Amino acid sequence: MKKKLTLAILVAASANAAVAGPIEEQIRFRQSAYSFAAWNISKIKSQVVDHPETFNKDSVAAAANAIAAVANSGLGALYGEGTDKGVGWKETRLKPEFFQKKEEVTVAANTFNVAANELAKVAATGDVSAIKTQFGKVGESCKSCHDLIRIKE
Amino acid sequence: MKKKLTLAILVAASANAAVAGPIEEQIRFRQSAYSFAAWNISKIKSQVVDHPETFNKDSVAAAANAIAAVANSGLGALYGEGTDKGVGWKETRLKPEFFQKKEEVTVAANTFNVAANELAKVAATGDVSAIKTQFGKVGESCKSCHDLIRIKE
Repeated sequence: MKKKLTLAILVAASANAAVAGPIEEQIRFRQSAYSFAAWNISKIKSQVVDHPETFNKDSVAAAANAIAAVANSGLGALYGEGTDKGVGWKETRLKPEFFQKKEEVTVAANTFNVAANELAKVAATGDVSAIKTQFGKVGESCKSCHDLIRIKE
Repeated sequence: MKKKLTLAILVAASANAAVAGPIEEQIRFRQSAYSFAAWNISKIKSQVVDHPETFNKDSVAAAANAIAAVANSGLGALYGEGTDKGVGWKETRLKPEFFQKKEEVTVAANTFNVAANELAKVAATGDVSAIKTQFGKVGESCKSCHDLIRIKE
């Protein structure tokens, strides 16, 4: 029984390792996730803030869904021990303090998650003014996390 | 009137340019989108194919939503003229034939889109066997597009 349990734990650990991957892979995947989110954020900014005459409901809704999907994807798995140093697509900008600020990070991550999922809901309505307001809240949640754990460029 | 129209076209063109961005940015964003999809594909593969004892319905559903969000995000906008040469996160692997194969690419992209959205639906049910089958179809749609337009490594 004990042997079975140990085996199960080993298998689960190796499965998690396969998902999380080595340090460079975790960094590369999280840089990819945030860049994909950034592209979708730029589409909403363009259509809602900078050039509202180009607003397209379907495009904005798809972009909002993409941001929510990033928020819901379990990014925490990509912040394994040691990932404050290393090169994914480029050198990581994660502050080493990340690992001492887990509680604050969890709050910030949850705020982003709630804001992004609400944006996806609001975007589906096509109400530009409501989208703009909620988009601002997502932006604030991004910034608060960046201030907390990302090295400034 | 003519002036107004010209201005509107210019504004729209500049908005599109802001969204699509220069060649390097288009390449970087599409590499990010596919890498984010690849991470989520690896999570489903791990939990459905390689280590089914680690299957977690919510995790697989979130991963499937992420893949669908990538498929729905309007990736075509990142394949502007000239993007068969250039460095995003790394040198692009897009074959120059892409621009002569637009119809085949559209069919392949639509197949991926349909398969990915169906996977998101199936994943929400938690039916592992059905997820595995549909996951295989998504994989086939990935491969057919890679064979068509991606330079082999």
